[in-house]
Amino acid sequence: MTSSHAQPTRIALGPEVDDLLADAVVRGGGQVVDLADAEALVWAGDDPARFPAELPESIRWVQLHSAGVEHWFDAGVIRRHPDLLWTSAAGAFSATVAEHAFTLLLAGVRALPEHLAATTWRQREFFAKVGTLRGARVAIIGAGGIGRAMIPMLTAVGAVVIAVNRSGRPVPGADEVVTADRVDEVFGRVDHVVVAAPATADTRHLVGAPQLAKLGPRSWVINVARGPLVDTDAVVDALRDKQIGGVGLDVTDPEPLPDGHPLWTLPNAIVTPHDSNPPSVRAGAFADHVGENVRRFVAGEDLVARIDPEAGY
Amino acid sequence: MTSSHAQPTRIALGPEVDDLLADAVVRGGGQVVDLADAEALVWAGDDPARFPAELPESIRWVQLHSAGVEHWFDAGVIRRHPDLLWTSAAGAFSATVAEHAFTLLLAGVRALPEHLAATTWRQREFFAKVGTLRGARVAIIGAGGIGRAMIPMLTAVGAVVIAVNRSGRPVPGADEVVTADRVDEVFGRVDHVVVAAPATADTRHLVGAPQLAKLGPRSWVINVARGPLVDTDAVVDALRDKQIGGVGLDVTDPEPLPDGHPLWTLPNAIVTPHDSNPPSVRAGAFADHVGENVRRFVAGEDLVARIDPEAGY
Repeated sequence: MTSSHAQPTRIALGPEVDDLLADAVVRGGGQVVDLADAEALVWAGDDPARFPAELPESIRWVQLHSAGVEHWFDAGVIRRHPDLLWTSAAGAFSATVAEHAFTLLLAGVRALPEHLAATTWRQREFFAKVGTLRGARVAIIGAGGIGRAMIPMLTAVGAVVIAVNRSGRPVPGADEVVTADRVDEVFGRVDHVVVAAPATADTRHLVGAPQLAKLGPRSWVINVARGPLVDTDAVVDALRDKQIGGVGLDVTDPEPLPDGHPLWTLPNAIVTPHDSNPPSVRAGAFADHVGENVRRFVAGEDLVARIDPEAGY
Repeated sequence: MTSSHAQPTRIALGPEVDDLLADAVVRGGGQVVDLADAEALVWAGDDPARFPAELPESIRWVQLHSAGVEHWFDAGVIRRHPDLLWTSAAGAFSATVAEHAFTLLLAGVRALPEHLAATTWRQREFFAKVGTLRGARVAIIGAGGIGRAMIPMLTAVGAVVIAVNRSGRPVPGADEVVTADRVDEVFGRVDHVVVAAPATADTRHLVGAPQLAKLGPRSWVINVARGPLVDTDAVVDALRDKQIGGVGLDVTDPEPLPDGHPLWTLPNAIVTPHDSNPPSVRAGAFADHVGENVRRFVAGEDLVARIDPEAGY
């Protein structure tokens, strides 16, 4: 008997079939089938209660839709099937958030808030306000997924990247890596700071008055991580005193930022309401993540963002 | 007699010695000396009348400070020394202007004008406004220095680049190249358009009402080339009708944009007063250009942006 052609890997989509995800499955080398016939399930729902109570025995891998999966553990879904491969969407949205942070920084350096407020042609005045990221030193505090995704963007415009992480281990593309215990000294020798670190007791008010004092009047501070990493009152003071150039905040403390807060109206504060990774953009990023994991599943390679059912994350 | 160590190449700076340029000369492998002892002259002045009437016989190369050198020909300076190597600053500022165009596009796609106008936390509303350049198709019309410098920036955030040029010759990094005679069809299949073409009779109103009609309600049009390439009245109409997402204009028609013009106050119009390449930024970019040419001069390689004294450019 001669060997038959290999059948495409059979992938089910739930809770419903979505065109973006179906395309991603096909791009990855799979075929979309009903759950009963599938080897893998891509579940794009966020509510564990809607997840199938039983899975067919043919299923070997389940791809979930969120980066954090605590609620899937809490609901007992993952532990019900400890022998399956489970993957999350961790990392899938890093590039989206990084693009947002990069936009805030570029907009600041190129004086877009002041340009947008202008209603008359003031070229000479703006000549003195427009800067460049070319040759600028940018600290990325927290070189996880978001920070790493930002590095090729920054180097594409000629910035020099100083990554700050806990281990001091090399970060691909960074010009320099500094360990987190030396983060304060970094403020004294960079032009701009991007905060992309996790929120912990250690990172609370990582950017406060002493750190802001080390920056310059053209420095921008960007935060796309968690509000409490930056001391809001210290930022307001630094903006009022023109100690720094400006801030771009996708996260705030308190959050939501209350009506009437000075950050809404201070000239060089750009506030975006924690929308760096909106649902519309998330769909495309998740589809790319699924396509890559399907390709790996078909090829028998290790999957991205694998969940450890024992460890609980 | 044993051979002596090679002497550093001797470069003079004029009209005065500037630290940035002196550093660039040293970085390129040269040594800053007085004009009388120099093999090359880097002249950072813009007025041909101030250029030395006589040059020492030791001079073999002169680097000028501007991208266009018509006024240096008009003043007869270059033709007085037809046997020297002359170089301009052509290309030195492309990356600076490209960074500005890229900033305008990213700011538009991420809804920064509307964010900056907000004074209350409206996350759900902004979820529907924030987009991404990841996977977006961006046409660059005019793939000269500025257009080419933009390509690595766009690809770093995952955009798909369609370059439009006259020859249809491949453009490094572009996903597709379309010849200029087919430019209109490009508007029907891209998300955003960046205008970076030279101003000629053929390119006047290259972006007009028929072209804008082919774009979508989330499309941004960026112009960093010359004002008349874009039909201003058509843009105003398209913005009022929400036919396009917005415009980012560093050049306008008329220019300067008069007080009271609707583009100053229409919500998604970002106007910057032809300041994409301000003197402050230009100095660093020119120094990089000088450093590279000094390196090439020292190494005996062809110089960048060589002027043809016979041809007159």
